[in-house]
Amino acid sequence: MKEKLGATNALYPLVTAIVGATVDGKPDFATIAHVGIAHLKGITLGMGKIHLTNDGIKANRTFSVNLPSEDMVVVTDHVGMVSGRNEDKSGIFDVFYGELDTAPMIEQCKVTMELKLIEHIELPTHDLFVGEVVGTYADLEVLTNGIIDIAKLRPLLFDMSSKKYWSLGAPLAKCWSVGKEYAGA
Amino acid sequence: MKEKLGATNALYPLVTAIVGATVDGKPDFATIAHVGIAHLKGITLGMGKIHLTNDGIKANRTFSVNLPSEDMVVVTDHVGMVSGRNEDKSGIFDVFYGELDTAPMIEQCKVTMELKLIEHIELPTHDLFVGEVVGTYADLEVLTNGIIDIAKLRPLLFDMSSKKYWSLGAPLAKCWSVGKEYAGA
Repeated sequence: MKEKLGATNALYPLVTAIVGATVDGKPDFATIAHVGIAHLKGITLGMGKIHLTNDGIKANRTFSVNLPSEDMVVVTDHVGMVSGRNEDKSGIFDVFYGELDTAPMIEQCKVTMELKLIEHIELPTHDLFVGEVVGTYADLEVLTNGIIDIAKLRPLLFDMSSKKYWSLGAPLAKCWSVGKEYAGA
Repeated sequence: MKEKLGATNALYPLVTAIVGATVDGKPDFATIAHVGIAHLKGITLGMGKIHLTNDGIKANRTFSVNLPSEDMVVVTDHVGMVSGRNEDKSGIFDVFYGELDTAPMIEQCKVTMELKLIEHIELPTHDLFVGEVVGTYADLEVLTNGIIDIAKLRPLLFDMSSKKYWSLGAPLAKCWSVGKEYAGA
């Protein structure tokens, strides 16, 4: 028997990202957990229009998505609590660039991506950005056989109900495999 | 020092959902981990155009998002491995409805949502759907003080690199709070 909870978004947890863009010629960052995947190389960002970072994404049509690990929880939350309108966030991280001049990536994040904007859907309160990954960068310490290993990355998972960051647990089963054990309804 | 990995989507893990829609008058389901949040009540689905379920979402402009728990990993993976074009998936789950007649929800999932389609962006290989949550339903056993408790829900997290489902770990820190400990770059 289910309880009706009104109209609550329950699609959690999602991985926490720090989004980077260039605003007025300087790197700016925002912590965003309202992210998603649109297709194999496509990433969505649901960003409240109040964010200064949105201006940079719209102006340059590029951005970065950086994945903080558990040991970055304090700075990640800080970047999510202060606006670039009130505090210059350009000096918080060491920044590097790949192919795109206006997609500042964060050296301290062990996995980073640079993206070009392919779609911008204006919703009443939010900008929904869809970007396509142009380049992906990872520290050697989070790779296993050349592939990103999330058990080594230790990403920060975000949940709105608890208003907490959560850690990743253990692997449970193989996708496109464990389903072969299905024996019928 | 970072390794360049080409253009890999590294935005994982994301929560695994079973999406429901009505196709030819019957419930159809697809397992989708390429999900996201667009705004407080907005959910994105990045669904390959090959999915039969997409036809139902486009025809009725409604769908459901159901969250399977760890104990549903076999059936969840099964639903992701077979197409409704080859197998009638209408009998796999017990189905119930909320306010929307064409958004079949799954009784076996402890958290479910019914949504109306508000945006449909056609990408080359994928439909990007944006839905708005109309109603949310949860089993009492996953609530704490009336709010969804993901530690009780035990959602299935999906990661593409490992091609595995992962469990949720422990809570790490409070959002919009732990960042107050930040002492500067």
